[in-house]
Amino acid sequence: MHAKGLEGIVVAETSISDVDGKKGELLYRGYDAGNLAQMQSFEEVAYLLLNGGLPNQSELEAFIFALKEKRTLPTEVQHLLRSLPKELMIMDVLRSCISSLNPKATWPPTKEEAIQLIALFPTIIASWIRHSAGKVPLEPDHSLNHVQNYLYMMSGNQPEAAHVSALTSYLILTMEHGMNASTFAARVVSSTESDLPSAICGALGTMKGPLHGGAPTGVLQLLSDVQSDTKSPEEIVREKLQRGEKLMGFGHRVYKTTDPRAIALRHVLKSTGGADQVLSNAVDIEQLITQLLAEYKPGRNLHVNVEYYAAAVMDAIAFKPDWFTPTFCVSRIVGWCTHVIEQSEDNRIFRPQQEYVGTRKN
Amino acid sequence: MHAKGLEGIVVAETSISDVDGKKGELLYRGYDAGNLAQMQSFEEVAYLLLNGGLPNQSELEAFIFALKEKRTLPTEVQHLLRSLPKELMIMDVLRSCISSLNPKATWPPTKEEAIQLIALFPTIIASWIRHSAGKVPLEPDHSLNHVQNYLYMMSGNQPEAAHVSALTSYLILTMEHGMNASTFAARVVSSTESDLPSAICGALGTMKGPLHGGAPTGVLQLLSDVQSDTKSPEEIVREKLQRGEKLMGFGHRVYKTTDPRAIALRHVLKSTGGADQVLSNAVDIEQLITQLLAEYKPGRNLHVNVEYYAAAVMDAIAFKPDWFTPTFCVSRIVGWCTHVIEQSEDNRIFRPQQEYVGTRKN
Repeated sequence: MHAKGLEGIVVAETSISDVDGKKGELLYRGYDAGNLAQMQSFEEVAYLLLNGGLPNQSELEAFIFALKEKRTLPTEVQHLLRSLPKELMIMDVLRSCISSLNPKATWPPTKEEAIQLIALFPTIIASWIRHSAGKVPLEPDHSLNHVQNYLYMMSGNQPEAAHVSALTSYLILTMEHGMNASTFAARVVSSTESDLPSAICGALGTMKGPLHGGAPTGVLQLLSDVQSDTKSPEEIVREKLQRGEKLMGFGHRVYKTTDPRAIALRHVLKSTGGADQVLSNAVDIEQLITQLLAEYKPGRNLHVNVEYYAAAVMDAIAFKPDWFTPTFCVSRIVGWCTHVIEQSEDNRIFRPQQEYVGTRKN
Repeated sequence: MHAKGLEGIVVAETSISDVDGKKGELLYRGYDAGNLAQMQSFEEVAYLLLNGGLPNQSELEAFIFALKEKRTLPTEVQHLLRSLPKELMIMDVLRSCISSLNPKATWPPTKEEAIQLIALFPTIIASWIRHSAGKVPLEPDHSLNHVQNYLYMMSGNQPEAAHVSALTSYLILTMEHGMNASTFAARVVSSTESDLPSAICGALGTMKGPLHGGAPTGVLQLLSDVQSDTKSPEEIVREKLQRGEKLMGFGHRVYKTTDPRAIALRHVLKSTGGADQVLSNAVDIEQLITQLLAEYKPGRNLHVNVEYYAAAVMDAIAFKPDWFTPTFCVSRIVGWCTHVIEQSEDNRIFRPQQEYVGTRKN
């Protein structure tokens, strides 16, 4: 059988996550991801995914300690960052650092290697952004948690609570999402008993493609368009719908009811967004658009998706479009590592078939 | 359906190669790869795979010129090589260089990008081997063809004709072999409309795994074992078979008759091997072992595979075991690039399914 894009083909049994598009449900190790995003820290959910259960207090403290210990850039990576061409994209920088990070990496992958990667991603990204702008990279601040420290290293300022809360929820909700292209690539690479950095380099290259990790520029444009001095948001959205414009950030390939990640982000932004005008506006505009979509496209059931709220969060924390995909990797590295470890526990090399459609010449 | 390792699942229609295990046949763009390896140059076969047909004289000259022009390491890559930890494996070095080579790489991939990668692989490998041994890397010699120049840059000496001939045939015969794990990984990465370097970084990491690109150390051990001062090769092989030892380099998962790549390499070594004792010995020992396998394991149909002659060639040119997998990449980069270009011509993102086998926790 020819399965183009492998649609509908099951390539792995997994106990990491369940993505149920019909019910609009996303479970991490059996727990509702939306609940986790509203109640737990980045560290707790990363621990849950990697280890299969939520940590008790001492397990959590040990995990937080291990992550903090590994945050600082090794000297070799500092050298490497200074030697790379400044016009390189952040995704390429991240991959080049991971590619040369660990000469001793081997198979099977370990949780310790995963923790090092999770800890280092924010530091590599923030260091490169400052370095390529001619600034000296900041040292990690060990009084801050994982997400606070990422915001601090990116901006140089102590982060605002509403921003930390919104970014934490976004990162938790994008840590893992089943057998997407980058996660699948990581599993294929590691199936030859290759090492974890190799699998992650494959995943980073896959995520770099605009069909997968593309920046939510369409949503940012929408958020900008509806804020006008002369017209109300409702007038502007009605005009767009009358012109037949597609509204980015609404509708989803998998989730036919609601996208549970968007619902959870809306809750978090509602509860903390009062402190931040951009976040509050995003919630109001989403609810307006959802109402008008039901009016203009009845029966189409178009709901907000995670990309809408991702853009709103990135907008609120003033992240540039180039920083979106690398920031997505700050969370997804957890899912990638977890899948590679699961693959190693019951591995079989991926070696599919091709169908030859050429002719014979001699 | 659950297709572990994707065995039997067709993931692409292709006109690049046909691997027919039952007939013992390997076609490149319709031409018998064994014939190509005995009659054509590395450059001609690389052109054939990339372009779909053999070059005429002026097309070949232009292709050779383009490859030579791109052989020299860009300054950025020279800087990078000097900044990498010296204990890094060659495969990691190759990947780190490709990862940061081309800040402007985009989708779809082009033949020009492919030519640059094919041209640079030998220079990166040879430069690293000299650099990490504390020697100054050699400049490419433009009076030499692709394979001659690789041997020259690795050893520092003008290469012997028998070695060039044997290595050329080996490289031609391993340029392409259907939907193996690394080629599949390259297609998965590029299916998100990611760039060619990203796909090649994925393929390199996949090839690094010992289930795929592992060095033929078992065959080297065999070749060394049978050369004794006190016993004849026949006595030694008979003892091994009586002890039930598996003889590495014989039998193949796909090729149930003969491995066409091994047959072609045997022909080349027979015709030129007289000039080199290691190559002549390898042919004699193979024929001895094949006869004894038929005697000791009748009906099992165990034939020599490409790994046996790969090891013999590497032994003759005095390549260290660490250099085997990177040298395999010097040829397979052609197949990888060709597959990524073919994928881009009729692309669909690879997004398979998983089966959730966990429970619900809340």
